[in-house]
Amino acid sequence: METENYHMTPEQFRIEGKKVIDWIADYYENIENYPVLSQVKPGEIIEKLPLSPPQSGESLDQMMEDIDKIIMPGITHWQSPNFYAFFPSNASFPSILGDLVSSGLGVQGMIWATSPAATELETRVLDWLAGMMEMPEKFRSTSTGGGVIQDTASTSALTAVIAARERATNFESNKKGVQQKLVAYISTQTHSSLEKAIKMAGIGTENLRLIDVDDKFAMRPELLEWQIQQDKKAGLKPFFICGALGTTSSNAMDPLGKIGEIAKAENCWFHIDAAMSGTAMICPEFRHLMKGVESADSFTFNPHKWMFTNFDCDVFWIANRNELINTFSILPEYLKNKATESGAVFDYRDWHVQLGRRFRALKLWFVIRHYGVKGLQFHIRKHVQLAAEFANWISASSDFELFVQPPLNLVCFRLKAADELNLKLMNECNNTGKIYFTHTKLNNLIVLRFSIGQTNTEKEHLEMAWKLICQKAHEILN
Amino acid sequence: METENYHMTPEQFRIEGKKVIDWIADYYENIENYPVLSQVKPGEIIEKLPLSPPQSGESLDQMMEDIDKIIMPGITHWQSPNFYAFFPSNASFPSILGDLVSSGLGVQGMIWATSPAATELETRVLDWLAGMMEMPEKFRSTSTGGGVIQDTASTSALTAVIAARERATNFESNKKGVQQKLVAYISTQTHSSLEKAIKMAGIGTENLRLIDVDDKFAMRPELLEWQIQQDKKAGLKPFFICGALGTTSSNAMDPLGKIGEIAKAENCWFHIDAAMSGTAMICPEFRHLMKGVESADSFTFNPHKWMFTNFDCDVFWIANRNELINTFSILPEYLKNKATESGAVFDYRDWHVQLGRRFRALKLWFVIRHYGVKGLQFHIRKHVQLAAEFANWISASSDFELFVQPPLNLVCFRLKAADELNLKLMNECNNTGKIYFTHTKLNNLIVLRFSIGQTNTEKEHLEMAWKLICQKAHEILN
Repeated sequence: METENYHMTPEQFRIEGKKVIDWIADYYENIENYPVLSQVKPGEIIEKLPLSPPQSGESLDQMMEDIDKIIMPGITHWQSPNFYAFFPSNASFPSILGDLVSSGLGVQGMIWATSPAATELETRVLDWLAGMMEMPEKFRSTSTGGGVIQDTASTSALTAVIAARERATNFESNKKGVQQKLVAYISTQTHSSLEKAIKMAGIGTENLRLIDVDDKFAMRPELLEWQIQQDKKAGLKPFFICGALGTTSSNAMDPLGKIGEIAKAENCWFHIDAAMSGTAMICPEFRHLMKGVESADSFTFNPHKWMFTNFDCDVFWIANRNELINTFSILPEYLKNKATESGAVFDYRDWHVQLGRRFRALKLWFVIRHYGVKGLQFHIRKHVQLAAEFANWISASSDFELFVQPPLNLVCFRLKAADELNLKLMNECNNTGKIYFTHTKLNNLIVLRFSIGQTNTEKEHLEMAWKLICQKAHEILN
Repeated sequence: METENYHMTPEQFRIEGKKVIDWIADYYENIENYPVLSQVKPGEIIEKLPLSPPQSGESLDQMMEDIDKIIMPGITHWQSPNFYAFFPSNASFPSILGDLVSSGLGVQGMIWATSPAATELETRVLDWLAGMMEMPEKFRSTSTGGGVIQDTASTSALTAVIAARERATNFESNKKGVQQKLVAYISTQTHSSLEKAIKMAGIGTENLRLIDVDDKFAMRPELLEWQIQQDKKAGLKPFFICGALGTTSSNAMDPLGKIGEIAKAENCWFHIDAAMSGTAMICPEFRHLMKGVESADSFTFNPHKWMFTNFDCDVFWIANRNELINTFSILPEYLKNKATESGAVFDYRDWHVQLGRRFRALKLWFVIRHYGVKGLQFHIRKHVQLAAEFANWISASSDFELFVQPPLNLVCFRLKAADELNLKLMNECNNTGKIYFTHTKLNNLIVLRFSIGQTNTEKEHLEMAWKLICQKAHEILN
């Protein structure tokens, strides 16, 4: 550390930065030696951190030493090939490097003028991605819509709900507040972020209908239709429907085609939440799951889940960008500029909740270019294939039952035993530190979830996991 | 690129990563050779990007070459010492490295269990920061409150408005939607994100009162008091007041003490937006500006503006965390875990809009430890001192007038000429590429803003800027 002005110099950065690069490479080479699920107790990490910050500066070596000693025991290793919990949040080296360039440039792309390349690269890369997935033309920037990077699918859900609210009220709610009796529709299996969005947007959960699902946990469109008619008879105004391209609990696929028809007929906003499974749409053979997207008003998925792009990177496409912009636009004097006034540019601050924005398109661009479309397809297919094999092992076992046929890369299964024993099995496996998976509840039963999408998960990892699960199950059952 | 499985190996990452580190160091060594404000025309960047993504992978060298050739001309250089636009978004090498470690670990810290260290480091570092600023005890995690990292002050504003809405309605709005006639108060100078938050939360801009300001552009508390009484007489329910510790246009300081008293008396939520100026509170001599914070319910500022922490890193403190958690909490089965059920941990997903979260505490930790409290104070004081010098030059010039006395590091001034000539001066200076600054409107006049807070801005940069401004002014006036 230079003592004169406290800054780290570029020369020091070259040295320290390369150490950090090596540290990360070492981490990935040794990642399987760490317990996947952190084994610390609440308060164990914070107790090791000083109560006060240092008055004088410390060296990077000291910080990296503390990372090893204090932080690492409290890390749950999302990048371990033995991580099967929740949905993945997989990363890749090209993505890490794209993100590093973004940190280095340090641009804040709130409007076009504050870094035209940040806006225009984002526009083009999201058009690329729409093309890779064969999204309808309307979602391209060259048509009426376009894509924008958001932080999470939760924020995209909020964005969609608010834009829907404004369209349904002729943009009056922004002025007068929520006054009309608006009603939204999701299934009992839809992600909790939709309920949260309905709360935040001032709609209220009493105006959120949870439509029941079929035996595959997919929304029953005839019940949706029935509920909408009931609500209309009661003088309420249906305004928003969310369909899931892969629910969180079981990866159920809502019948988007039928839901889309109902949404069109009832003049409801149709949002598709494809947070994890959207990535699979880059493979033609899975695109039938997306049928109905042509009726959608908005569509979101997370490259930061299954597309090797490190968190955070959610993609949100809109069919009619004017509806979004009219909802979120602000233009204080201190942000006025010629490019904005010309109307020839996108100012992405009008496409979402935040004003400021990081240059996240870089990492997505790096990922797509490093892997190429073929490389990405290769890995998605491999994960789906691994999930199918894992499902076969379960089906062939007398101790376990496959709970649903996995449509893609999430396997839901149960030990043929009481709920407590299923949870015991899960906890005992996770406590070994060798693997990490989580549970859900379906049909009021505890169900174990195995989410296969980590960047480096190979068949050998899955075989080890299955062996461990069988061994623990054997101990528990006997 | 390994052809077998398309992944970049750790060994390749060591090589490529070090190249990127060198590229960033080179960038900072040469940053003053780039035009600060990108000089490209709308569409110029996107036209150079291929219409379709590559089918097969490309090398990192190709990508870095495209960054140099295609992206760099479209970058507005926020990290240039000659950047004086908007508010700064300053970065530093330690921050970039902390962020790199975060990208490398790739943890998603939505709940404590998904990486206990991510939660506990964040809790401790935000307690550190509260201590560095002498924030009231209630904002510490060890008391009733605590801090959480958000992406931007816009999101923090939304978070505060929604929590305030719920407290004011006994948490009924989350269920029934916004029904009561709630009214919020800001000044005519408050940042546009507050208006946006009022829209998003379903309150409506007709229920937002813009209180007039005094000759220093600070909210007039007697008018706030009067307006609240009028609204109560009209049967409305005042619920939220935002005070600015430094407005965006002119860095005006609202009288937080008086506003806080009114908020207490009227049972309104009191949010303080200190987006840029909050950083100055780490210096005791500026803390008088914060008087009144003891009455606040929430307080936000951006280390990503003036505290050498690369975007995004906004800090949001809450006095009573239960009000926040009761507003935002969700607990679907698939996120249930023992630690959450024990009540012994913070699950930060309940402290904000999003579910998923990046490990951003690392970069803030690195910054505070690298500089130490003294190093940070040194730079804040230097920027404030530079602003005072710049203001003196303006005052001493016959062509210019200082529009307001700068309380900290933002200088507002005008060429003694028509608005159009002020804009012409600004545009001509910016078009040279040597400096970049922006304007605002105050008392219906165009006012030029000089925001001094970039990491590497030294007196020599300011002297060059002033010389250029004087020269262009001379040309315009004659």
